[in-house]
Amino acid sequence: MERLAIIGVGMIGGSVAQAAKTRGLCREVVGIDRDPKALEKAFRLGVIDRSETSITEGVKGADGVVIATPVGAMKPIFEALKPVWNEETFYTDVGSTKRSVIQDAALVFGQVPRNFIPGHPIAGRERSGVDAADESLFRGKRVILTPLAETDEATLDRVRSFWQLLGAEVHDMSPVHHDHVLAATSHLPHLLAYALTCLLGRKDEKDEIFQYAAGGFKDFSRIASSDAVMWRDICLANRDALLPLIDQFLAEFGHLRELLASGEALVLQNYFQTAKAARERFLEQYERRERDGKN
Amino acid sequence: MERLAIIGVGMIGGSVAQAAKTRGLCREVVGIDRDPKALEKAFRLGVIDRSETSITEGVKGADGVVIATPVGAMKPIFEALKPVWNEETFYTDVGSTKRSVIQDAALVFGQVPRNFIPGHPIAGRERSGVDAADESLFRGKRVILTPLAETDEATLDRVRSFWQLLGAEVHDMSPVHHDHVLAATSHLPHLLAYALTCLLGRKDEKDEIFQYAAGGFKDFSRIASSDAVMWRDICLANRDALLPLIDQFLAEFGHLRELLASGEALVLQNYFQTAKAARERFLEQYERRERDGKN
Repeated sequence: MERLAIIGVGMIGGSVAQAAKTRGLCREVVGIDRDPKALEKAFRLGVIDRSETSITEGVKGADGVVIATPVGAMKPIFEALKPVWNEETFYTDVGSTKRSVIQDAALVFGQVPRNFIPGHPIAGRERSGVDAADESLFRGKRVILTPLAETDEATLDRVRSFWQLLGAEVHDMSPVHHDHVLAATSHLPHLLAYALTCLLGRKDEKDEIFQYAAGGFKDFSRIASSDAVMWRDICLANRDALLPLIDQFLAEFGHLRELLASGEALVLQNYFQTAKAARERFLEQYERRERDGKN
Repeated sequence: MERLAIIGVGMIGGSVAQAAKTRGLCREVVGIDRDPKALEKAFRLGVIDRSETSITEGVKGADGVVIATPVGAMKPIFEALKPVWNEETFYTDVGSTKRSVIQDAALVFGQVPRNFIPGHPIAGRERSGVDAADESLFRGKRVILTPLAETDEATLDRVRSFWQLLGAEVHDMSPVHHDHVLAATSHLPHLLAYALTCLLGRKDEKDEIFQYAAGGFKDFSRIASSDAVMWRDICLANRDALLPLIDQFLAEFGHLRELLASGEALVLQNYFQTAKAARERFLEQYERRERDGKN
């Protein structure tokens, strides 16, 4: 690959750029961002070789284009790409929701271009911005691709290889399934962490509360430090999967409240034990991957 | 100190024993537990010097007694201690709730003994059992003591010094204040993590959900791996502080749901930003302590 263009030079976009350069996947990485300061920083850090604020200019002659902006920005980006769309180039994105991205592409192009491969690297971090970029971010991580019936197989293979060369394990999934799984494992926990942190931060005794909060709270609330714009976009884009899940959680937590109020010790203990056992099953899988040098 | 008795040789009790031995605070540590296997393991690991299944036998001649059992077991322990209570010995506990422990002591003794100092080291870990004991567990951690009007000052000083010699920073607080602060920083987050893990673990697609859960979920749910009996006791013992807080959370999360449903992007973004800012204030304090070699 001669030239790779990255639209949105944040933590993920910067990591893609760095990983591609480090592994020699391309001769030049062009960073495209509407924020000149982000571009300047990315250039200074050696994450990109050239910077452009114009999408039209930036993607010229690119063999691959990775869109790494918050999902709320996808539609205007597709609009900017449309006049210069190149059938020989692969296009992919890293958005945390897939149906919304596909819908935006369909709206702009009439139908989703055959050489656009919707994707999502499961590689979150609460830090944002290009300073947090890390060329090893995708090593052993999973990248979910959600190809469609109209997707071009050869382009899909190129994007799959691209991620594999960055060290990732690539899985295919349907867009709707992706959005439901991620709503459960990622979006709902983010909302819970945001809500708890907001609630406690509003209390009169908040300073004291936070003073006595320890490692448990720190880990629990880590995801509440995630970028507000990015998570606004994700939650809005995946709203129809998230709302029923929120309702399920509200019912679940209301049920747990009643267990506690009723004071039925054994039922409460069994409830906690069930949760602990479920997490242990998760942890087993997680640690097996860890041992295999993944995650 | 000649002899220290630890009632309940689990993760916390074992850590107290190990820390006291390592720092030469006493010549002998007696471990008391109703589970002979736990005692055997503690002895084999060198955490205790001698083991007893009988409280009456175990506390004989002890200069200090640390009760490190789940808070639900306090009442029978006070009952067992009552006939052999020694005015010269200091007694303290490590329970995560303080009003319930004080109430149990008052019920058993008529009034809380002057030489019982209710305490709580803020040093959680999701692992339990004496295998998880760690002599450095309390280094730089906070220990909250909740003395009462009738508490003997000299005994309070002895217990304060004891924890300080184990490396902890000792704070005094009223029992009710302790229970409210801990409900917010620790007990409510535990319930949220338990409830989410239970909800996801019950879903048909749970295997896949957990397969695609990443570091964010791992950290968020870590506290759901905590011991079920211990947390059953804590939640029941602190029920009257927890229930209103749960209701506040349910209202807060219902409000966040409405924000999401209404689709008001800017309001949602501000909400997330407020949470992020609150967590940053917490993190600043936390990391300042970390830099000072605390936490």
